[in-house]
Amino acid sequence: MNKVYNTEIICVGTELLLGHVTNTNSRDISEMLSKIGINVKYHTVVGDNPEKLKDCVEIAKKRADIIITTGGLGPTCDDLTKQVLTSAFGLKLVENKAEMETIYEYIKGGKKVTPNNYIQAMLPEGCTVFHNEWGTAPGCAFEAEGKIVLMFPGPPKECVPMFKKLGLPYLKKLSEEQIVSHSLRLFGIGESAVDYMFRDEMNKMVNPTMAPYAKECDCLLQITAKAKSEEEAEKMIAPVMEEAKARLGDWVYGVDIECIEERVIELLKEKNLSFAAAESCTGGDVAGRFTDIPGASAVFKGGVVSYTNEVKAGVLGIDPTLIEEKGAVSYEVAKEMAERVRVLCGADIGVSVTGLAGPDGDGVHEVGTVFVGMAADKTYVKELHLGTYRTRSFIRRMAGNHVFDMMRRYLTGLNVI
Amino acid sequence: MNKVYNTEIICVGTELLLGHVTNTNSRDISEMLSKIGINVKYHTVVGDNPEKLKDCVEIAKKRADIIITTGGLGPTCDDLTKQVLTSAFGLKLVENKAEMETIYEYIKGGKKVTPNNYIQAMLPEGCTVFHNEWGTAPGCAFEAEGKIVLMFPGPPKECVPMFKKLGLPYLKKLSEEQIVSHSLRLFGIGESAVDYMFRDEMNKMVNPTMAPYAKECDCLLQITAKAKSEEEAEKMIAPVMEEAKARLGDWVYGVDIECIEERVIELLKEKNLSFAAAESCTGGDVAGRFTDIPGASAVFKGGVVSYTNEVKAGVLGIDPTLIEEKGAVSYEVAKEMAERVRVLCGADIGVSVTGLAGPDGDGVHEVGTVFVGMAADKTYVKELHLGTYRTRSFIRRMAGNHVFDMMRRYLTGLNVI
Repeated sequence: MNKVYNTEIICVGTELLLGHVTNTNSRDISEMLSKIGINVKYHTVVGDNPEKLKDCVEIAKKRADIIITTGGLGPTCDDLTKQVLTSAFGLKLVENKAEMETIYEYIKGGKKVTPNNYIQAMLPEGCTVFHNEWGTAPGCAFEAEGKIVLMFPGPPKECVPMFKKLGLPYLKKLSEEQIVSHSLRLFGIGESAVDYMFRDEMNKMVNPTMAPYAKECDCLLQITAKAKSEEEAEKMIAPVMEEAKARLGDWVYGVDIECIEERVIELLKEKNLSFAAAESCTGGDVAGRFTDIPGASAVFKGGVVSYTNEVKAGVLGIDPTLIEEKGAVSYEVAKEMAERVRVLCGADIGVSVTGLAGPDGDGVHEVGTVFVGMAADKTYVKELHLGTYRTRSFIRRMAGNHVFDMMRRYLTGLNVI
Repeated sequence: MNKVYNTEIICVGTELLLGHVTNTNSRDISEMLSKIGINVKYHTVVGDNPEKLKDCVEIAKKRADIIITTGGLGPTCDDLTKQVLTSAFGLKLVENKAEMETIYEYIKGGKKVTPNNYIQAMLPEGCTVFHNEWGTAPGCAFEAEGKIVLMFPGPPKECVPMFKKLGLPYLKKLSEEQIVSHSLRLFGIGESAVDYMFRDEMNKMVNPTMAPYAKECDCLLQITAKAKSEEEAEKMIAPVMEEAKARLGDWVYGVDIECIEERVIELLKEKNLSFAAAESCTGGDVAGRFTDIPGASAVFKGGVVSYTNEVKAGVLGIDPTLIEEKGAVSYEVAKEMAERVRVLCGADIGVSVTGLAGPDGDGVHEVGTVFVGMAADKTYVKELHLGTYRTRSFIRRMAGNHVFDMMRRYLTGLNVI
């Protein structure tokens, strides 16, 4: 039986509590640890205050086996993490010759070194030193009272590479288990519906486990397994993944990807097809999201942001009478926009979006009414009602997701609508 | 003497401990609280585990006056925050009629009805309900055992606007002192240059205070005053603000606004002018960012995403020989793009962006080379070198900011370049 190492990450820094800085160290360290099967159970952030930090360390000693700190290793009078952690475990700080020499080297090299810089060479007695190639303050690790303590500097540019190169191998020796996770990305079904669908199995599952998470305009189902090796964990995941995929069917748009447009790029490249977009209410968002992905230029021709009826008529060449009769937010105009942008930009597929993103209505449709179109061998138009209570940004993003989903469905031979 | 409210933010979610998600809620809530003079002393992250959450709440009760939770309010079996917090304070959950009806309405909007959705309408007895306009799960606040507890949903798109609109006013009432902050938004100067410029004054200031902060592609200088009343605080800020504005000059693009495009919309509306955009490397981002702001339709005509040379020639009507001779990434093509999109869309101002956002180069220019153009009574083109080491997203966003800044300068009678 593998020992379970519960881990707490304590980030020290008043700037985090003021909201000036985002705590990316906790995320990055957690992500690296989860991959080697070490469970992070708590993140704590505390200011540059030795008493409060001491209290946090006492709490961590009770609930964690591994304590990882970031921040407070520098030369300023605020930097007290080493002092607090060392004394919390009844240890002393002693001068480290090698680190002291590094500081002497700086002086020889002509760099100005203020006396407080030498504090950085004071390290817990008997510790493993983590030399800092990315800055000046060294990190360290020690074991005491059955706990494992690791300390890293606060700046992410030092902390993250240092943890990866020195912290991770130090901890890897402890772990006999590997953890592997895969995510099914879903569009057209909500997190709660997925939860409802799989609740009985999820309650019974121990290893692998399965959990749905909501994302901005879609959701995912994550399957995670622990095993002696990655291969074994993959083998445990495979049948669960297959069954979940089969049950979720068309809703699955990809595995381990970030967004639906990533899948659409992949499919367009595979089939050597291109697309172009005519956008009204999304105002360039569909093109913008797509072209934010490197490699988009291989499959994206361009588009027209036809925000006004003049541009719909003048640039796309839609008959003004049609726009007047049917309205800019209509099935007919969405159809024309998709067909015309396809021809105009010389693309294989043309897509279109026209609708009301709000907050103001047009006196005819309710906010959230959007028509999305796709023209290829034939033209498809879908009418959406994305919710009057939704934000403008949500409606725009969701409308874009529907466009990408229509393309995904078309390119994989599913029913487009 | 004003009571000091020490605050702890507890974010609930296993996805945070796995490093799948960055904890932006803690940062955003902390930032908002620091502006109204409430001190955040701890951030804690714990998984979707009721026992562990209970222990964290017990710790928070000992060291904080205000406990704010995010996450775990949704409909899935993992969502147990309300249950744990309510029972930790000896309260019960009761059905809230209004929220139950809202959930019916929401689900009518197209989502599948699953029984677990109704759990969201169970709220602590006697609580203040924070209705969720941005999603389904309501938040709430209650006071018990001398503590103030507030709960918000986990998705940042719900949590942040909800905290801003409902949580902040709720907490503001507690404070006898009024804190007022104003921010000068700056483009064209970096945070460290601003820091250097005002360092001497900042070190001497007590109330008001002044501090520069870096944002994604620009920065801001924040001036904050504490006083008995808002009026008094405003009076204290005014002269400091005026002096800072005078010293920063053209770099100031606005006060208390979120982004430069917000200022451009305002100026276009004031002058009753419209614009259109021709975009290559920003791929629709300039139009997308602009139209994300409500009211954009009054001043934005539309645009062309001329991602390929075919579209530059075929839709914008640029001479293919010019593109071939000068290259798509050139002064000349940027100029033509701005001029042609202006005429094509019938706008007063035409803007253009053509460049290399990377990661791949074109063998001629280094990544980060971008030409931005603006055509009005005359045409202006600016050549930018945004840094070979920068990300694609940064280059696209920064190029967009330069376009908006050219328009801002033109519309306020400053030198455009």
